[in-house]
Amino acid sequence: MSAKLSLIGCGPGAADLLTIRASRRIGEADLVLFDRLVEPDVLELASPLAEKRYVGKGCGDGGRQQADINCILKEALRDGRHVVRLKSGDPMVFGRAAEEVAIAVELEAEIEIVPGVTAALAAAAENAITVTERMELQSFVVTTGKSADPNKDPDWSNLVKPGVCVAFYMSVAQAWRIQTALMAKGVPGHIATDWIENSGRPNARRVTSRLDRLALDARKQGVSNPAILFIRYPLSAAAGQLSAQQAEQA
Amino acid sequence: MSAKLSLIGCGPGAADLLTIRASRRIGEADLVLFDRLVEPDVLELASPLAEKRYVGKGCGDGGRQQADINCILKEALRDGRHVVRLKSGDPMVFGRAAEEVAIAVELEAEIEIVPGVTAALAAAAENAITVTERMELQSFVVTTGKSADPNKDPDWSNLVKPGVCVAFYMSVAQAWRIQTALMAKGVPGHIATDWIENSGRPNARRVTSRLDRLALDARKQGVSNPAILFIRYPLSAAAGQLSAQQAEQA
Repeated sequence: MSAKLSLIGCGPGAADLLTIRASRRIGEADLVLFDRLVEPDVLELASPLAEKRYVGKGCGDGGRQQADINCILKEALRDGRHVVRLKSGDPMVFGRAAEEVAIAVELEAEIEIVPGVTAALAAAAENAITVTERMELQSFVVTTGKSADPNKDPDWSNLVKPGVCVAFYMSVAQAWRIQTALMAKGVPGHIATDWIENSGRPNARRVTSRLDRLALDARKQGVSNPAILFIRYPLSAAAGQLSAQQAEQA
Repeated sequence: MSAKLSLIGCGPGAADLLTIRASRRIGEADLVLFDRLVEPDVLELASPLAEKRYVGKGCGDGGRQQADINCILKEALRDGRHVVRLKSGDPMVFGRAAEEVAIAVELEAEIEIVPGVTAALAAAAENAITVTERMELQSFVVTTGKSADPNKDPDWSNLVKPGVCVAFYMSVAQAWRIQTALMAKGVPGHIATDWIENSGRPNARRVTSRLDRLALDARKQGVSNPAILFIRYPLSAAAGQLSAQQAEQA
């Protein structure tokens, strides 16, 4: 028996959006660690002999914290088991992968990371939202829109620039602050915004709006997390408009 | 027979990094359109009765242009066929999806977009590069690093900010200009850079460097496209340093 950690990106939820490699690896696990974002269908890919352990975290759901997960992981790797850690979306995007990889490195376990479809791109595909567009959108950003300092908002206008599509994860509570901060920096109020709620699930919903109605429409429509907010700022919308950067320097 | 367009993200190359949904859909196609970035293994998933058509584009490879692809697509949809268009990576990221979707909309064909693992995240997984990190990297950007105006570089310092990891696609030729432009805006020369060449393929290679040696190391090591460049600018590297933005305003 040789210890192995497989960090597996499970994609947005639907079992058929797992990669073939991910589904095979789940079938090979001795121990499967999963959280509340992983669908039951996915767990059925595991061997009946494998141990499945819920290590659900989430805002205030009373689930285990990362420290406990790290502890379980250490013990299992010391016992020479093949641990499959399921992550929703892609493991390298907001997946706290660094800490779990460091444990496996320390214990000299084999490490494999299987990429997955990140939530924003699944939501984009489902709703035919192009996140890059020739001559219009040249960069695509994923962010939580949160700051390292919990008492201070990040400068969102650093991200929402002409030619950029930004996907904000889990940012419903910041809608009003995002809207006002961007408009204060000269981002045009008419640019398109989309909330995608419960992306990839049967109860998925799209709420299309524009920057100057972002918070109002979110409240009217009762948008709630899990939701991804897309803000697309095409180059043509910036032309002839005081750009965010010019406004900043003025 | 009812016309249908499936835009399929094939991921970074390896057939087992296709999603289960993608592999099923390829098997259902009447006509499969593929380009040179799609591996032969993937085409083997198509029915022996399906027509497979090479529509390879690439810089100067003499392949068909987008206009020709659009033409083939129109004809097939008018004939009521199920067209599966294979895209490397994810169809919404640098995939020219908007034009092909518009054709299907115009012809009232059914449209399905199947997301895929985008090249940057596959490269990140393969090399254990975390593209977000708690307290250090809060946003992740994918870009070609190209400008709408071919005679003018974009302002790369708009993207490479403290707390951001940027993946540049196909940017080997711009290495020296990226390096000097960023350093001129105050981005520290010691931040980590990684070239991932031929990501997801047997001849994949990683060339680790730092911003102030980026172009030199690329030349010394003979880095060539297809390659993805990761520049990670952690918040801690910006602390106590004149930030890019402050330098800009000074």
